Amino acid sequence: MRVMGVDPGLTRCGLGVVDSGRGREVLPVAVGVVRTPTDLDLAQRLLRISESAEEWMDRYRPDVVAVERVFAQHNVRTAMGTAQAGGVVALAAARRSIPVMFHTPSEVKAAVTGNGSAGKKQVTAMITRILELETAPKPADAADALALAVAHCWRAPMLARLAAAEAMAAAQKRRYEERLRAQAAARKAGGQ
Amino acid sequence: MRVMGVDPGLTRCGLGVVDSGRGREVLPVAVGVVRTPTDLDLAQRLLRISESAEEWMDRYRPDVVAVERVFAQHNVRTAMGTAQAGGVVALAAARRSIPVMFHTPSEVKAAVTGNGSAGKKQVTAMITRILELETAPKPADAADALALAVAHCWRAPMLARLAAAEAMAAAQKRRYEERLRAQAAARKAGGQ
Repeated sequence: MRVMGVDPGLTRCGLGVVDSGRGREVLPVAVGVVRTPTDLDLAQRLLRISESAEEWMDRYRPDVVAVERVFAQHNVRTAMGTAQAGGVVALAAARRSIPVMFHTPSEVKAAVTGNGSAGKKQVTAMITRILELETAPKPADAADALALAVAHCWRAPMLARLAAAEAMAAAQKRRYEERLRAQAAARKAGGQ
Repeated sequence: MRVMGVDPGLTRCGLGVVDSGRGREVLPVAVGVVRTPTDLDLAQRLLRISESAEEWMDRYRPDVVAVERVFAQHNVRTAMGTAQAGGVVALAAARRSIPVMFHTPSEVKAAVTGNGSAGKKQVTAMITRILELETAPKPADAADALALAVAHCWRAPMLARLAAAEAMAAAQKRRYEERLRAQAAARKAGGQ
């Protein structure tokens, strides 16, 4: 499975691609960062991010795109820009029928370092070791994008089992409700 | 000038097109709302909104797209979705080289009703009267999209004058600084 991780942002948008093998085996494919100038129009910045994301998707053909889920940040303006950058990347994937999965920063940190509140340095150090990179990816956004991709590889089997379990529970509930309805109908027919 | 107003949202995205004439003359062209189901994937919802916005842009060929600027809302999750919906619409415009302008809700309310904190009903009532519509546009998102377009038409000349004044001030500052540098250089040359 090939996963493209995206750490969205208007000023710096991290992109990283990894291939997953057996078990927890992960191999680095590509890493980079898209920058857009702060004095450029918002729409133009989104266009540049979209074009770069599309270029990467067309070049590396990921099976899935993993995007960081944005929550409230200290700075609302930054959070909005981050959400918009992530939105246009998700859109680029949807246009190509590539599934998009969102992971929270703490899910990524927990998957990669074992600690959901790990710092940026720790994430960079761990991802460098996990992917056996010769030098640490820079800036932090590039390392985060790789961390997202690796976290997705490792979380995907668990998420798939969870989804299967939920589907099974929903089916059981449906069958149970149908049986109740059938019993009620039988009682009603018997009473008449 | 033809303006497409957009009241962004994931569940309901309002779209409205108006033509501006002389002075404050505005004519309605089209109004509608794009809905996406809440149980659909975020990426798929953004794709539907993007496709509808592109369809409208290709059909009505606006000279400018006016989008509501999203600020912090009561619900952070909603605010993020709204920002993302607005982002993909801005992207669709940028792809077509259509300029995108953002206006805050209070700027729109002030332009259309004279009161920056007017309620939804008041905005709908005023936009119905301004555009001489036979029936009030529904839902509120559709009315808001028209209000955005009208507000842009009326704010555009003021914004253009403001931009011209700012450009002139910047040019004056540049010339003044050049003169100071030339004088300093002349003094230095004279002193040697």
